[in-house]
Amino acid sequence: MARFKLIIEYDGGPFVGWQRQQNGLGVQQAVEEAAAAFSGETATVHCAGRTDAGVHALGQVAHVDLAGDWRADKVRDALNAQLRDVLAAHGCPRAVSVLDAEAVDDDFHARFSAMERAYEYRILNRRAPAAIDRGRVWWMPRPLDAAAMDAAAKRLLGRHDFTTFRAVGCQANSPDKTLDQLDVVRDGDLIRVTARARSFLYHQVRNMVGTLSLVGEGKWSADDIAAALAARDRTAGGPSAPPDGLYLTGVGY
Amino acid sequence: MARFKLIIEYDGGPFVGWQRQQNGLGVQQAVEEAAAAFSGETATVHCAGRTDAGVHALGQVAHVDLAGDWRADKVRDALNAQLRDVLAAHGCPRAVSVLDAEAVDDDFHARFSAMERAYEYRILNRRAPAAIDRGRVWWMPRPLDAAAMDAAAKRLLGRHDFTTFRAVGCQANSPDKTLDQLDVVRDGDLIRVTARARSFLYHQVRNMVGTLSLVGEGKWSADDIAAALAARDRTAGGPSAPPDGLYLTGVGY
Repeated sequence: MARFKLIIEYDGGPFVGWQRQQNGLGVQQAVEEAAAAFSGETATVHCAGRTDAGVHALGQVAHVDLAGDWRADKVRDALNAQLRDVLAAHGCPRAVSVLDAEAVDDDFHARFSAMERAYEYRILNRRAPAAIDRGRVWWMPRPLDAAAMDAAAKRLLGRHDFTTFRAVGCQANSPDKTLDQLDVVRDGDLIRVTARARSFLYHQVRNMVGTLSLVGEGKWSADDIAAALAARDRTAGGPSAPPDGLYLTGVGY
Repeated sequence: MARFKLIIEYDGGPFVGWQRQQNGLGVQQAVEEAAAAFSGETATVHCAGRTDAGVHALGQVAHVDLAGDWRADKVRDALNAQLRDVLAAHGCPRAVSVLDAEAVDDDFHARFSAMERAYEYRILNRRAPAAIDRGRVWWMPRPLDAAAMDAAAKRLLGRHDFTTFRAVGCQANSPDKTLDQLDVVRDGDLIRVTARARSFLYHQVRNMVGTLSLVGEGKWSADDIAAALAARDRTAGGPSAPPDGLYLTGVGY
């Protein structure tokens, strides 16, 4: 039995999320079907961050155990070859790609060994809607002040009770998290929000981005952000940003 | 009667190309239906570069004449609002967006006034297929030498008979064209080919990129590129690159 660490890219649009579910196709199910197809084994794939429906990944990390004697690069290529057929059969061709596979020790666990998750949130801030990037950005037609959003974002850094940005249904034991990075940078019509922490609460990034958008529109000040955080109450926060703009970019171990 | 210059972005994937056709939806038809829906007029939309099926645009330029008295920004917003419904009805939601509309003189013609067309061709050069950018890049799994491609590309600059890179069905009167720019630059896993000329022959960019890929793979030298050009024979050239990676990025007047 050998364990493989996988780096996975996907377009979250066609999926009900990472996790295998009854009501539609999860990314997990697609990867597990591809693993079964090439190895003949029934394999469970564990990931570092269970992304929601519509959320994308540029660097999801997962692991899978295989009994057969496989070279890591063969695992990557065979998974991609099988994913091609599996995804086409499910009606979402080519939406998942295995960027890398690496043999790891048995004590590596994609979720429990992870020391850091990094997300990027992309806002398209222009008058015209997205055509090329539709479904992959949050379109905000009104001008946003990215510098003001960045300054306000800094008020959320550090260890806090993030209840204000925690979705109903969050299964974390505690609302206390340490936010290590939250940067807002404009790149032409695109605004990129980079968030980094050991882990996040359910919908935390989308709720922080949605609330910061109020600062970008000039409706809220940085002090309002700090007050919302201190309130420890979801209703004190702003709206949740849609899943379309969110990317899991990487996981640190 | 007022003439408006439009800047249009589109994902070419769902379309049979720019031009209105019997066998499917052209971008032209979608824009014309949107113009008719908001203005009540039957308007013809003329573009600068009639892109093929699957080819994208970041900056297609077109013009349209409207009898009503419209402000330019209202034309842009109304076209986008109507495109939303028109495209949804055709089963390709949000694939076209009007970035800008500007009132122009009657002697402006999107096609005949154009002094320069600029294209970008994107090659994803990595072992794993594209997931996020599927349909928007040419996936080349074998390593390409972008610097060698760039050096060979320089052999195509200037005024030449480009018959070697001209597709069957090209309606240009002459195969003589002047190529002003052809740069190949690597940006991580992405290779960007930038091409600029007053005008191009049918499939010229895709045929040049396909032929340069042979240089990238080490099968052809820069001298082979020069010899192919001198042969003035399509069969002396390399393969045509697929439409997925091609973007009309801008038009100069």
